[in-house]
Amino acid sequence: MDLWYTEITNDTHGLTMKVKRQLLHRATEFQTIDIFETWYHGNLMVIDGVVMLTENDEFVYHESIAHVPMQLLEKPERVLIIGGGDGGTAREILKYPSVKEVVMAEIDGAVVETAKEFFPTIAVSFGDPKLKLLVMDGAAYVKETSAAVTAGAAAPYDLVVVDSTDPVGPGEVLFTEEFYRDCSRILKPAGARPGGALVAQTESPFDRARRGAIGKIYKNLRAVFSKSSMYLAGIPTYPFGLWSFTFSSNGIDPVKDPFRAPFVPEGLKYYNRELGRGVFMLPNYVKDLIDG
Amino acid sequence: MDLWYTEITNDTHGLTMKVKRQLLHRATEFQTIDIFETWYHGNLMVIDGVVMLTENDEFVYHESIAHVPMQLLEKPERVLIIGGGDGGTAREILKYPSVKEVVMAEIDGAVVETAKEFFPTIAVSFGDPKLKLLVMDGAAYVKETSAAVTAGAAAPYDLVVVDSTDPVGPGEVLFTEEFYRDCSRILKPAGARPGGALVAQTESPFDRARRGAIGKIYKNLRAVFSKSSMYLAGIPTYPFGLWSFTFSSNGIDPVKDPFRAPFVPEGLKYYNRELGRGVFMLPNYVKDLIDG
Repeated sequence: MDLWYTEITNDTHGLTMKVKRQLLHRATEFQTIDIFETWYHGNLMVIDGVVMLTENDEFVYHESIAHVPMQLLEKPERVLIIGGGDGGTAREILKYPSVKEVVMAEIDGAVVETAKEFFPTIAVSFGDPKLKLLVMDGAAYVKETSAAVTAGAAAPYDLVVVDSTDPVGPGEVLFTEEFYRDCSRILKPAGARPGGALVAQTESPFDRARRGAIGKIYKNLRAVFSKSSMYLAGIPTYPFGLWSFTFSSNGIDPVKDPFRAPFVPEGLKYYNRELGRGVFMLPNYVKDLIDG
Repeated sequence: MDLWYTEITNDTHGLTMKVKRQLLHRATEFQTIDIFETWYHGNLMVIDGVVMLTENDEFVYHESIAHVPMQLLEKPERVLIIGGGDGGTAREILKYPSVKEVVMAEIDGAVVETAKEFFPTIAVSFGDPKLKLLVMDGAAYVKETSAAVTAGAAAPYDLVVVDSTDPVGPGEVLFTEEFYRDCSRILKPAGARPGGALVAQTESPFDRARRGAIGKIYKNLRAVFSKSSMYLAGIPTYPFGLWSFTFSSNGIDPVKDPFRAPFVPEGLKYYNRELGRGVFMLPNYVKDLIDG
C-alpha cells in the first residue's frame, strides 16, 4: 500500500508526505481534524485540509513564535495565547520562570484533546497550574478584556501570541485592525520598562496569492503599533517551506534592543540569540511586501 | 488534463508542481535533462530526476551563492565557476565591475544549450566577452590549474564557486578533501589583502539522510581552510525548502569582516547586506551538524 498526504497551494504547488496510516478523522463544531502517522515527519495534524504541525518540524514554529519575543521582554509575567491548542507555544513560554500565568483562548477544545492523545511531546503543559485554558473564541476574549481595561482595569498582558490558522474563514478576524487594537489595549503600557508586545504568525511571503494579505496585515498592525517587524523561519511542512511571523510593540526594537530575558532556556533545538537577530534580516522581495 | 511533476526525497517526503507541458527530454552523455513549463514557477529544469532550478525562485539560489561571497572580497578579478551551466551564477558575478574574467567549467555543454533556449533570463551572460566557457570536468580543470601553480604559476582566482549537483554520482568528487585542496591552491594567497575564497552549495540541513554527508563535507573543508561558515536560504522548490551554502577561506570572517565590495549591485531581488550577515545565524539543529 502506498498512502500519501498531499497538500496543494494555489492549485499549482504542493507538498506530499508518505503516510503509514490515518489515526483520526473528526468533524468538530468548527472544523475537521485529521491525524496521520507519516514515515518521515512523525505524526501530522491537519485542520480543514491544511497542515498544522508535524512532530518533526514543530520545534521550528514553536520556538520561533515563543522565544523571539520572550527573549526581548523584561520579566514577562502574563502571556495570552490565541489559538495554539496543540500546546507547543505554551510549552515554550512556560520555560521562563518569570511567567506566572499563561491564558490560552482556543476556540476548539477538540484540538486540545487530540493533541494530548496524538502529540504527547507537544501537549505537555495542560497539567501545569500556570496554564489556564479557556475554550472560547480568542477575539471575543480579547474584546471582553479590552472593554474591562477601558472601564478601568489594569492592562494584564506582557505578550499576546496569535497562534492562529490562516486569515480565511474563522481565523480572518484575528488579522483585522479592530482585533489588533483590542490586543494593544490589554498589553501593559510602556513606562519604567518597555510595554508589552504582540507576536503573530503572518503566512508565507513566497505565496503570491497571499502577498496582498500580508500587505493588508501590515497596514492593520501599523495603524495600532508604532513598530511591526517581520521575521522568517524555514518550516519544511508549510507551503513553500518559508514562513513569517511578526513582532509588534510600542517601543521595543527587536533588532537593536538588548535581550532582556536573564538567560536562554536550555535544550532548545532551534533558537539562539544570534539567530534571534538574524531572522529579522529579510530578503528584498520580502521587504517589498511590507515596506510602504 | 492534470499533469504534475513530483519529486520525492528519502522515499517519504516530496514536492509537486502542476505542469502545463513538457518542453524537452534529452539524454546527454552525462545525464538526462527535462524541461517543464509549470503553472506557478515558470520553466523548470530537472537533471537526473532532481529539480535544478525554476524561473520563479532561481534568484534566491543564485544571489545567495554569488553575492554573499562577492560582497566580502576586495576587488575580485578572476572567478571560477564549477558547474553552473544554466548561467545564473555567472549573471550575478558579472554585476561587479572589478571582475575581468569568469571561467566556467561545466561538464555538460547540453546544460548551457538548454538554458539558452528555455531560460533566457538566466543564461544572459554567455555572450559576455568576460565569460570563458570550458566544457569539461571541473575537478580535472582544478587539478590541472593546481599543478600549474605547484610548478610555479601564480594562483589565479579570487573566488571558486562550486555550483554543483548533489554529492552522489558525478558530483561526488566536488565534495572531497582532495578537490578542496586543489581549489585552495588556485586561490590567491592572503597578503597585503585577504586571500581568495571558496563557496559551495552544501545540501539541505533538514534532510536526515544527508546530515551525515554535511558533516563529512565540513571535515573535508576544515582539513584545508582555516574557516568554513554555513549560511542558509529558503528555496521553495528544493527538498524541504531550506538549503545551505558554505563560505570557506584562510582569513576572511564572513560575519565580522567589513564588506569590501564598493557597493551592492542594483536591482537585486534577494540579497542585501543585513541579510548577508543574517544568513550566517544558524538554528541550533544546524550548528549541531557542523560543530565538533
